[in-house]
Amino acid sequence: MLVFQPEGKRIKAVEGKTILDLAKALGVQIRSICGGHGTCGKCRVIIRDGRENLSQPSENELRFLSKEELDEGFRLACQAIILRGREIIVEIPPESGLSRQRLLLKGVERSIALKPAVRRITIRLKEPTLTDQKSDVDRLLDAIESKVGFRPTISYEALRNIPRVLREGEWVITAILWMDREVIAVYPGVRDKPPYGVAVDIGTTKLALYLLDLDDGRVLASASTMNPQISYGEDVISRILYIMKSEDNLERLHNVVVGAVNELIDEVCSKVGIKPSDIHDMTAVGNTAMHHIFLNVTPKYVSLSPYPAVLRSSVDVRAKDVGVKMNRGAYIHVLPTVAGFVGADAIADIIATGLHEMEDHAMLIDIGTNTEIALGNKDQITVCSCASGPAFEGAHITHGMRAATGAIERIWINPETLDVTYKTIGDVKPSGLCGSAVIDAVAEMLRTGIIGLNGSFNSDVDTPRLRRREGAPYKEFVIAWGDETATGKDIVVTQNDIREIQLAKAAVYTGISILMRHMNLKPLDVKRIFMAGAFGNYIDPQSARMIGMYPDVPLNRVKFVGNTAGSGARMALLSTDVRALAESLSERVEYVELGVDPDFQDEFVKAIHLPHREIERFPTLMRIIGK
Amino acid sequence: MLVFQPEGKRIKAVEGKTILDLAKALGVQIRSICGGHGTCGKCRVIIRDGRENLSQPSENELRFLSKEELDEGFRLACQAIILRGREIIVEIPPESGLSRQRLLLKGVERSIALKPAVRRITIRLKEPTLTDQKSDVDRLLDAIESKVGFRPTISYEALRNIPRVLREGEWVITAILWMDREVIAVYPGVRDKPPYGVAVDIGTTKLALYLLDLDDGRVLASASTMNPQISYGEDVISRILYIMKSEDNLERLHNVVVGAVNELIDEVCSKVGIKPSDIHDMTAVGNTAMHHIFLNVTPKYVSLSPYPAVLRSSVDVRAKDVGVKMNRGAYIHVLPTVAGFVGADAIADIIATGLHEMEDHAMLIDIGTNTEIALGNKDQITVCSCASGPAFEGAHITHGMRAATGAIERIWINPETLDVTYKTIGDVKPSGLCGSAVIDAVAEMLRTGIIGLNGSFNSDVDTPRLRRREGAPYKEFVIAWGDETATGKDIVVTQNDIREIQLAKAAVYTGISILMRHMNLKPLDVKRIFMAGAFGNYIDPQSARMIGMYPDVPLNRVKFVGNTAGSGARMALLSTDVRALAESLSERVEYVELGVDPDFQDEFVKAIHLPHREIERFPTLMRIIGK
Repeated sequence: MLVFQPEGKRIKAVEGKTILDLAKALGVQIRSICGGHGTCGKCRVIIRDGRENLSQPSENELRFLSKEELDEGFRLACQAIILRGREIIVEIPPESGLSRQRLLLKGVERSIALKPAVRRITIRLKEPTLTDQKSDVDRLLDAIESKVGFRPTISYEALRNIPRVLREGEWVITAILWMDREVIAVYPGVRDKPPYGVAVDIGTTKLALYLLDLDDGRVLASASTMNPQISYGEDVISRILYIMKSEDNLERLHNVVVGAVNELIDEVCSKVGIKPSDIHDMTAVGNTAMHHIFLNVTPKYVSLSPYPAVLRSSVDVRAKDVGVKMNRGAYIHVLPTVAGFVGADAIADIIATGLHEMEDHAMLIDIGTNTEIALGNKDQITVCSCASGPAFEGAHITHGMRAATGAIERIWINPETLDVTYKTIGDVKPSGLCGSAVIDAVAEMLRTGIIGLNGSFNSDVDTPRLRRREGAPYKEFVIAWGDETATGKDIVVTQNDIREIQLAKAAVYTGISILMRHMNLKPLDVKRIFMAGAFGNYIDPQSARMIGMYPDVPLNRVKFVGNTAGSGARMALLSTDVRALAESLSERVEYVELGVDPDFQDEFVKAIHLPHREIERFPTLMRIIGK
Repeated sequence: MLVFQPEGKRIKAVEGKTILDLAKALGVQIRSICGGHGTCGKCRVIIRDGRENLSQPSENELRFLSKEELDEGFRLACQAIILRGREIIVEIPPESGLSRQRLLLKGVERSIALKPAVRRITIRLKEPTLTDQKSDVDRLLDAIESKVGFRPTISYEALRNIPRVLREGEWVITAILWMDREVIAVYPGVRDKPPYGVAVDIGTTKLALYLLDLDDGRVLASASTMNPQISYGEDVISRILYIMKSEDNLERLHNVVVGAVNELIDEVCSKVGIKPSDIHDMTAVGNTAMHHIFLNVTPKYVSLSPYPAVLRSSVDVRAKDVGVKMNRGAYIHVLPTVAGFVGADAIADIIATGLHEMEDHAMLIDIGTNTEIALGNKDQITVCSCASGPAFEGAHITHGMRAATGAIERIWINPETLDVTYKTIGDVKPSGLCGSAVIDAVAEMLRTGIIGLNGSFNSDVDTPRLRRREGAPYKEFVIAWGDETATGKDIVVTQNDIREIQLAKAAVYTGISILMRHMNLKPLDVKRIFMAGAFGNYIDPQSARMIGMYPDVPLNRVKFVGNTAGSGARMALLSTDVRALAESLSERVEYVELGVDPDFQDEFVKAIHLPHREIERFPTLMRIIGK
C-alpha cells in the first residue's frame, strides 16, 4: 500500500511503477515540469516509511538532491520505482504540492450590444385534429417560420423531446434557437429561466469559467481551478512531448481538461441554483495547444517546424462531441487562433482591450508560460508568441513556487543595509517565491547594486545575505532566513535564478522589439501598454520595467488589464458580432514568427542584459541606478 | 436452470418471471402477437421437464389450449410463471418459432441518373513552410474551394483525423464530401475504394438492406432478417402498446432494430470484403411507426386520435446519434412520411413504380400488416393506410404461419372430388399455412362452392374434409391430413380463419374503394395495379381477385413489383434528386384518413362478402362461379 501524506490517500503499491505514476493514477497532484523525465527536479517527495521498497536513487536524483536531503528521505517522485508492493508512506512537502492558487478572474469589460447566439421563443400552437394531422415537427417549424421569418432545423435531441413537450405544455412550447438556424432544445409551456451561457479561458496553468445570463448579459458566477494537465507537464512543450509518447495520451489530456471544465460548470451551477442542462451556449479560448487538446485534436505539429496549427478559424462543435456537461443539444463556439502558439486567447485579448479600434498604437503583453504580444491600432496589428517559459510563474527557480498561500509576492531591499522586507500571500510564513517576487528581487538587487547590468553578483558587496555555499557552483542571495520560513530553510535567489529571469524577460523584450521594428515604431510611439494574464496583475510594473521586460515608457501608459482572455470569451458569448469580429481579426492580424527573424539572435543576446546591453534605450532607468 | 430446446440455450430460472420474459432476455425468439397479454395464444411451448416448477394454467391458457394439449405439456410462454428456480426444459414447436423466412429482396428498378449525396475528391496540397504557416484545415478547405467552387464545413470526426492523414498521405488527401456541404471523412493519399452506401427498408416484419457502390450505382450485396421487435409484438399497434407500458421500452425497441441493422451491415460488408467504416451514406424507409422507433422518437401519438406523426419531412441524422455502425462522420437520410401510418415506405413505393409520372391512373397496394394504398397519376395522388392485420402473413389463422420452410404456399381444390393439392415451401412435410395459401384456400373453396358468397360453409357439401369437431363452435375444412404433416395433426381452415381473411381483404378493398371515390374513378379507369410488399409476390393474383381484395380488372393489368420500398430507398441512396422528389411527394400526396370517412363503415361491411355484397362490381367472378 502506498499512502500519500498529508492527505492520507491510499493506493496499491504496484511494482515497477514510480511514485509519480501512482500519484497521477490517484489524482494526487505533485509538481512536475519536465513530464517525469527526471530533469526538472521539482517532484520532490519525502519517504516517511518503506524506503527499502524503492529503487536506489538515480543519477538524476543525486544531481538534484543533497546528501542531507537523501538522508532525510527525499526522493524525486518520477525516479523512485517501487520494487516491492509493501507499505510505503510518502509525504508531499508544500513546495511540491499544487495548492490552490491565486488566479485572476476579473478582466476589463467593454460594453457591447447584447446579441447572443441563442435565444428563446415561446409559441402557442394549434392542437392537431382529424382534419389537421400535420406532424409535430412541421407544426412547430411552421409556427416558428411564421413568427420569425425563417425555418430552422432541429437538433436530434430536441426532435426526440418534441412530442412529450408539446403535450406537457398543452401546445405551448418554448424553443431555444441557436444562431437562428437550429432548434437545440424545447421546453413545455412558457419557460421563465433565461438561456444561460458559460465562457471558459483554458490557460496552460489555469482554467477560468464564467456563468452568464444571456438575457441581460450579467455574470452570475465564476470559478477557477488549476489546469489538471499540469501533472503531465507544466508547459505546453512538455505536454506535447507527452502526447507524442503514446496514442492514448491526447485523449487522456483531453479528458482531464474537459473533466475540470465540467467540475467548474457544476460549481457555478450550484452557486446559482441551476442545472448544467440549463446552459445553452459556451465560448472557449486558449492558446493553440490548449485549444487543440480541448477539441481532442493533436497539437503535435504546432511544436514542429514549420509549426502549422490544425485549425485556425473558429469552430462550432457540439458539446456532447467534446464531452462537456451542458444541454445535450448545445454547441461550443471555440474562438479562432492566429498561428503557431498564438491562440484564441490572443484574439480575445485584442477584443477585450479594443486594440483593434484604437487611433494610437498600443501594445498588449499577455504574460504566461507562453507570452503573447500584440502591437498595433485600428489599421494594423502584428502578434507574436514568446517562449518566455514558466519562470515568471515561479518555475525553474530554486525556491520558486506558484502564487499560492505562503509564496512571497513582493520584495524590497534597503539600499543602505541591504536588508530585505517581503510580503507573503496569506500573510503566513513563506515557503518560496512566486514570479512577481523573483522579478522584484532581480529589480531590487539591480537597483541596490547587488548585481550588475550583466546580472552577475557584485563581488564587492558586503552582506551575509550574499554567499556561496560549500560546493555550490554559484553565489546566492538570501531573501528569508530559515527561522522565518515554513520549511525551516533559507529562501534564496541564486545566480542561476537571475539568469532564468534574464532569459525570460529577454524573450519578451525581443518579441516586443521585433514587432516594433516590423511596424517601424519607437518606444514612445506606443501610447499604451496593456499587461494581461492571470499573473500579470501581481507584477510590479516598475520592477518589470527596471529589468527591461518592456520598453522605457512612462508608467502611466502601463495598464494592468487582468485576464483579458476571459473577458474576450465573455464578450463572444454575449454577441455573435464579437464572434464575427474575432474571425476577421484572426484573418487580419499579422503573425510574426520570431524564430525566423534574422535579427532574433542578436536582439535576444542584447536583451539578456539588465535592462539591455544598449542601456541608452532605457533613459529613465539610467537615472534611477545612477548611470 | 431453464433450457430452451431445440437450440439448447440456457438461462437461470428466475422466480416470478414468465418463460417469455426469459426467452426475450436470452434472445430466443418465440412468436408473440399480443405483446405478452395472453390474448393471441401464439406463444405455445411444450414443457418437457419441470412442469411442477411452473404456475397452474391461467384462464387464457384454458381458452387456447385443449385438454389433450395441456396433458402433453403445452403452455403459453407468456402465462407460465416460474415458481421455483429448478430445472425446466422448454421445447419451442416449429409453429411458435421465428424460423428464417422467405423475404423478397428484389424489387423493380427504374434507371436514374447517378447523383449520390457523397462524393470523394482527391487533392494535392502545398506543404506548409515557415513563410506559409496556414492551418491544416484552412489549407484543405482553401484547396477544396478553389477546386470545386464552394467551401464546406468539416465534421468533428474528420477534423480530428486531418493532421495525421495529411502527413501520412504526404499532403495528398482524399476527402469524402456530403451534400457538397461537409467533409465527413478524410483518407491519406489517393483512395481507390469508392464511397459505399446502404439502403435499408425497415418493415414491421422484416428488414432488408442493400450495399451499393456509389461510384457506379451497382448493388454489391443484400441481406435480410426478421425485425427482432417481433418478440415484443407482431404488429405496429402491439409494439406501440409495449412502448407505452414503460419509459425504457422505446429505447429497447430502438436498440434491437438498430442492432439488427448493424448485423446486416456486418453481413454485407463481409460478403464484399469492406469495413463498416467504408460506408459513407445510408437511406432508410419504413412506415411511420418503424421510422419513428428507428429514430428513437416515440410513435405513441401516431396511434392515438388524431394520429399526428412527430416527423413528416425527411431528416438527415448522424449515424452515431442513432447508433448505426458505419463511418463515424456519416449521415443517415430518413425518407419523409406522409401522415398517420403512411410512411416513408409508401413514398419509396411511389418513386420506385413511377406512379407520380404516369399519364394513366395506376394503383399501388403494398401488402403488409399495414397495407398502404396509393392511387393516382402525374397530376394527383391519394394514399391511405389499411389496418389489414397480419392475416395475409399467416397470423391470427388457426394453422397460420410465416412463409418459412414447411409452410403450405399454394392450394388447389378439385371441384369434382373436393380433394386438395398443395405445395409446401422447401418441399418438406407441411407444418402450417402461410398467407398466400389461406387466400388460395378461401378462393378455391368459393370457386368450388364449399363456401358461399357470405363466407359460410355450405351445409350441403359432402366430403369428410368438411367437419365439425366435437365441442368446436365452428366447422373446419381439412387441407392436409395428419399423416401427411410434420406435426402429425390435421391442418385445417376454420370458419373463423375465413372470417379473418374476409376482414383483412375487406379492409384493403374499402381503402381502394374510398380512394377511387375520392378521385372519381371506376375500376376500369385504373390501368395498372402494382402489388408490392415482401409477401406480395407470393399471392396468387387470381385468388386475390376472386376473394375481392382488389377490383375486377383484367389480370394483365396487375403487376407484382416486389419490395418497392427497398427499391425506393436504393434510388434515394443513388440520387439527391430522388430525395428532393420524395420530399415534394410527401407534401403533395393527399392522405385520406379512412377512419373519418362517412362511408367507411358501410363500405367495409359490404366488402366482407366474397367478393362483395354488390357482386355486380365483379362481373368476371360472376362468370367463374357461375352466378
